Amino acid sequence: MSADNRIGKQTLIFNSRPQILSSYAIVGDIEGQGPLAQYFDAIIKDDTLGEKSWEKAESKMLELSVDGALQKADIKKEDVQCMFAGDLLNQIISASYAARELKIPYLGLYGACSTMSESLLMGSILLDGGFASSAVCVTSSHFSTAERQFRAPLEQGSPNTPTSQRTVTGSGCLVLGYESKARTIINVTHATIGKVVDMGIKDASNMGAAMAPAACDTIITHMQDMGRTPNDYDLIVTGDLGQLGAVLLAELCLSRNVDLKGKHYDCGCAIFAPEQNTKSGGSGCGCSAVTLAGYLLKQMVMGTYHRILFMSTGALMSPSATQQGESIPGIAHAIVLERGEGA
Amino acid sequence: MSADNRIGKQTLIFNSRPQILSSYAIVGDIEGQGPLAQYFDAIIKDDTLGEKSWEKAESKMLELSVDGALQKADIKKEDVQCMFAGDLLNQIISASYAARELKIPYLGLYGACSTMSESLLMGSILLDGGFASSAVCVTSSHFSTAERQFRAPLEQGSPNTPTSQRTVTGSGCLVLGYESKARTIINVTHATIGKVVDMGIKDASNMGAAMAPAACDTIITHMQDMGRTPNDYDLIVTGDLGQLGAVLLAELCLSRNVDLKGKHYDCGCAIFAPEQNTKSGGSGCGCSAVTLAGYLLKQMVMGTYHRILFMSTGALMSPSATQQGESIPGIAHAIVLERGEGA
Repeated sequence: MSADNRIGKQTLIFNSRPQILSSYAIVGDIEGQGPLAQYFDAIIKDDTLGEKSWEKAESKMLELSVDGALQKADIKKEDVQCMFAGDLLNQIISASYAARELKIPYLGLYGACSTMSESLLMGSILLDGGFASSAVCVTSSHFSTAERQFRAPLEQGSPNTPTSQRTVTGSGCLVLGYESKARTIINVTHATIGKVVDMGIKDASNMGAAMAPAACDTIITHMQDMGRTPNDYDLIVTGDLGQLGAVLLAELCLSRNVDLKGKHYDCGCAIFAPEQNTKSGGSGCGCSAVTLAGYLLKQMVMGTYHRILFMSTGALMSPSATQQGESIPGIAHAIVLERGEGA
Repeated sequence: MSADNRIGKQTLIFNSRPQILSSYAIVGDIEGQGPLAQYFDAIIKDDTLGEKSWEKAESKMLELSVDGALQKADIKKEDVQCMFAGDLLNQIISASYAARELKIPYLGLYGACSTMSESLLMGSILLDGGFASSAVCVTSSHFSTAERQFRAPLEQGSPNTPTSQRTVTGSGCLVLGYESKARTIINVTHATIGKVVDMGIKDASNMGAAMAPAACDTIITHMQDMGRTPNDYDLIVTGDLGQLGAVLLAELCLSRNVDLKGKHYDCGCAIFAPEQNTKSGGSGCGCSAVTLAGYLLKQMVMGTYHRILFMSTGALMSPSATQQGESIPGIAHAIVLERGEGA
C-alpha cells in the first residue's frame, strides 16, 4: 500500500478535513490579567483549585478543560473514542490522572511544549483514517509545578535571567470530529511531523534559543513539501519561543530564504503584557494550547484569519540530562487550520 | 465521515494489514543469561555501553535497536517516515536523544511499560491511514536508570520486597511497512485502545497488582468488541505483570467469565529464570519489547503461534504523585498479530 496521504518528506494530507467541533481554555490568574483575557473560557483565581498540591490542581485543570470542551460540542464523555493528552510533568501525571477520572480511552504523549500540535496531529490521523468519529486533544502546564520540577523550588526565590520565560498556568482542549453544526467550520487539512534539532543550547532558562532551530526546520520542510510560501498563510504561529526565540526564528528562516515578516505570531510573546514582567514571555504546553483554544480559533471564526500554520514548539529538556552535560533538543510539529463554510 | 475502521467501543481494524518488516532486540547481561537469551539479536556485557551515564547508555541502546531493525529491513534511516518512541525516563530522554541522532521524524509517547503496544498501535494507524509506507516503533528500559528514578539509588542497597520486579535492560524495535519479501508475513490486524484503570494500589513495588485490572479491562473490551474469546488466540500476551500480577489477571478475567487458562503468557514471567532471583519477574518498557521483537515474533514465523493478542501493560506511577498520596493508575493497549503467507 502506498502512502497516498503523504506529500513530500514529512507532511500528511487529511482529505476528510477533520473539524474542530469545540475548544475550551482555562487559565490562571496572571494569564487572566494579560492581553488575551477576554478570550478564555475560565480564569481561576486560586491556582491550587482547592486541591492539596499544584500537581493535583494541574490535573484537575486538564480535566475541567476536557469537560468544558465536550459540553460545548454536546458530546458525552462515554461517547468519545480517544483522548490524546500530555503535559510537562514527569510521567505526564496531569494527563494520566485526568484520564483516570474521565474514563476515556487514552493515548499518552510526551512532546514537551510541542504537545498541543502533536495531539492534534495524532487526533487528525485517527479521524482521517476512519478509526474514530471524535477525539479529544488536550494539554496543560502550571507555573508552580514546572518551576519545581525543571528549575528551583519557588520557596527558594531564585531570580530569573532576561532570557527566561514564565510557564503558563492553563489547559487548552480541542474536540475533533465531523458534522459540526456551526455556521463557520475550522478544518485540519495538513500536518508536518517534526524532527529533533539540537544546536547545542544548554541553558534551561533560554528555551527560545533551543526551540527556534526546530521551528525553522519544520517551517522550511512544510513549505517545501507543500510548495507554499509564508504568503499562503495569514499567520504562522509558534508555541513559546518568547521574545528572544522569535527574533532568532526570523533570522534563521531568512538565512534559508523564507521571510516570515508580518506573518509570525508567537503565543509566548502574546499571552503576557510587557508590564507583567515575564521576561522573554510565556512558555509551557498550556501556552500554545490556550492561545489556540481561546484567541486564535475565535479570530478564525470571526474571519480575521482564514488559514494558519499552527506549530507548538517543544524544548525536550530534562534536569537529569542537563546535569549530565547534555544540550537541549528542540522539536516542532505543524498543523494547517483552514476556515470554511458550515452546513 | 463515519468511523468505518472501528469495531465496538475501543477497537480499530487495519484493513491494509500493516506488516512487521523486521525486529531487533538488544538486552543487558542478566537478560542475556535468562531463558530467552538465544532469541535476542545482541547482548551487552557492559550496561554502560562505554557511555558516561546509564541514561546515555539507555539512549544509545534504543538507537542501536533502531539501527539494527532498519538494517534487517534494508531501509535507510533517511527513508523512514516516522518514529514512534518512548521510555520510562522523565521527559523520555532515551527516545528523544536517540531521535536527535537518528534524524527521523519523531512522535514521542508516554505510556510507561505500555509503550511498545502504544507505538505499534500508532504506527499501524499511520500506515493504514495511508500517511506513511514505513514506521519505526521502539522503546527501551534500563535497570539502573529506572531504579534511581523510581525507587532508590542503587548505591543505597535497598532490599527488594517479594512483589517487586526487576526492570529489564533492553530495547526492542519493530519496523512496520508493506511489501515484505519474507516467506512468512506477520500482520497487524486490529488494536484496542486502553482506558486508565486504578484500583487503589499505592505500592511502587507491587506494579503487577496495579496493572492487572487495566489488562483485564482491555482483554474484556477487546473480546466484546471483536466477538471473540481467548480460544480465538494461540496466546494472550501481557507485558510485565509478573508472577503475582499474572495470577491476579487470571482471577479478574475469570470473575468476568473470560478464562485465560492455557492462553496467558506474561513477558515479565518469561524473561528471567526462577534461579535468577528477580522476585516477581521482569518489568519495564523493554520487557515486552524485547520479548516480542526477540522471542514471540520468531515463534510466529516458525509457526508455533498463528494469532496472538499482544498487550503491553503500563503502571503510570510517578514518585511525585506517590509522595502526594496518589495510587498507581494502570493502562494496557492490545494489538492483534497474525501470521500469513508472503509473496
